[in-house]
Amino acid sequence: MPIDPDKLRGAVLSGGTARWTQEDIIMYHLGLGAGVAATDPRELEYVYEGNLKVLPTFGVIPLFDVLSAVQGLDGVDFDLAMLLHGEQDLRLHGPIPTEATVDSTGSVVGVYDKGKAALLVIETETLGASGEPMFTNRFSMFIRGEGGFGGEAGPKAGNDPPSREPDVVLTSPTLPQQALIYRLSGDMNPLHADPEFARLGGFDRPILHGLCTYGVVCKAVVDNMLDGDVNRVGRFQVRFAGVVFPGETIVTSVWRERNRLLLQAGVRERDTAVITNAAITLV
Amino acid sequence: MPIDPDKLRGAVLSGGTARWTQEDIIMYHLGLGAGVAATDPRELEYVYEGNLKVLPTFGVIPLFDVLSAVQGLDGVDFDLAMLLHGEQDLRLHGPIPTEATVDSTGSVVGVYDKGKAALLVIETETLGASGEPMFTNRFSMFIRGEGGFGGEAGPKAGNDPPSREPDVVLTSPTLPQQALIYRLSGDMNPLHADPEFARLGGFDRPILHGLCTYGVVCKAVVDNMLDGDVNRVGRFQVRFAGVVFPGETIVTSVWRERNRLLLQAGVRERDTAVITNAAITLV
Repeated sequence: MPIDPDKLRGAVLSGGTARWTQEDIIMYHLGLGAGVAATDPRELEYVYEGNLKVLPTFGVIPLFDVLSAVQGLDGVDFDLAMLLHGEQDLRLHGPIPTEATVDSTGSVVGVYDKGKAALLVIETETLGASGEPMFTNRFSMFIRGEGGFGGEAGPKAGNDPPSREPDVVLTSPTLPQQALIYRLSGDMNPLHADPEFARLGGFDRPILHGLCTYGVVCKAVVDNMLDGDVNRVGRFQVRFAGVVFPGETIVTSVWRERNRLLLQAGVRERDTAVITNAAITLV
Repeated sequence: MPIDPDKLRGAVLSGGTARWTQEDIIMYHLGLGAGVAATDPRELEYVYEGNLKVLPTFGVIPLFDVLSAVQGLDGVDFDLAMLLHGEQDLRLHGPIPTEATVDSTGSVVGVYDKGKAALLVIETETLGASGEPMFTNRFSMFIRGEGGFGGEAGPKAGNDPPSREPDVVLTSPTLPQQALIYRLSGDMNPLHADPEFARLGGFDRPILHGLCTYGVVCKAVVDNMLDGDVNRVGRFQVRFAGVVFPGETIVTSVWRERNRLLLQAGVRERDTAVITNAAITLV
């Protein structure tokens, strides 16, 4: 049985130490398409070490080693081409430094049967060098073709936007080579580079990383609605409802709701949703 | 005296070991703008580890440590903002591997007085792990404001193209953030990122690295005239005659001449020359 929920539930992932430098931060931001307005001082804070800031969504990056350990767990066996990112929930416990060494731990906190797919929910905790909590992630791994083992379908996603028109609409073009740049931040899954591998996964061509879209949307909100202040984002939850092909334009609709921003994002070229049930909780 | 030719001539630079991985090769090619045609199998060979090839101009990259040692030499003292790249001459002794550990040595082989500027010529030799010669570089450093110490002006550049119209004209757009991506390959000089530093250097805004333009031109020739075969380039000599601002389009004119291609490159938007006296010697 490719997915054995009894073995997986509560399973602990081998933790890992990760280290990043200013270059890694710059690399990450370039992978989101930062730097187009290369001479705008505020944009430069993403891509130049002079006065560097860190987009909160960088908090998903130092977890690749921990997440890779999922494939080594007892009770799981799947084809990487069938893996998609289901949901992401990142909680920040403070600003992310431009250079750091961190320790992360992780465990399986949910195993759900979506019928055609299995959904594994991994929670990770990342601590700074002095043991201070830095951020907490929930990654939901949507494994196509591995459902039907019997069990709960899992909680419904919240964060539905109100029925009124969005308060703000933001537009983020992506580069044709966006996924190729983004993957150098650590997620080298060939689904994002190799056309043949993408076809095996059921796509006409390589797709943008869900977490790249995640960062692109966060950056659009920070730049256009939070005056460029990366530290105002306390939490960012999303459901990945569709894929972006590199080169497409991401359109983000935003509704203000007390201390939260409710979000939906789609692709302009195909008029399709890519992020739903999404919210940024403001600090 | 900022430049003391007697102390500098023949001075040996502390050598260095450099190591690169496939990710470094991909990073370098992305810094040249590779990957726009992200699903073209031949373009993918620059940016994906499946069947990776190495553009010969990567041979200038593992020398930054050796070149940085110039500033520590006795007899030289200059402002980094005044440094421009004068000429480059790269000779390949074989294909560049996608992963390697190499050792390089360097020395000052020329000190010339250009009147308003000093020209230092550094020759470096790079050997592979078994001591096999991999490539030889001549970097000419053009240091504005440091001439007038008295001495030869140096040899005239050759490689003048014939008077006929070019045989081929190639067009290479660059990204507004091209220099920001390219600099992650090692040349972090703020001249290519920081508008204020660029102004100190006399430019309205940050300029593209000369060696980025160098790679862009080589890639255009390899892709369009050498059937994508990176191993047909045996030597690539250029003079940097002007600067490219990121986002501009580089236009390369090529004249075929027996086993060589003579080249000139300019910027379409400003109708100005950026590379002259250039030749690729074919293997």
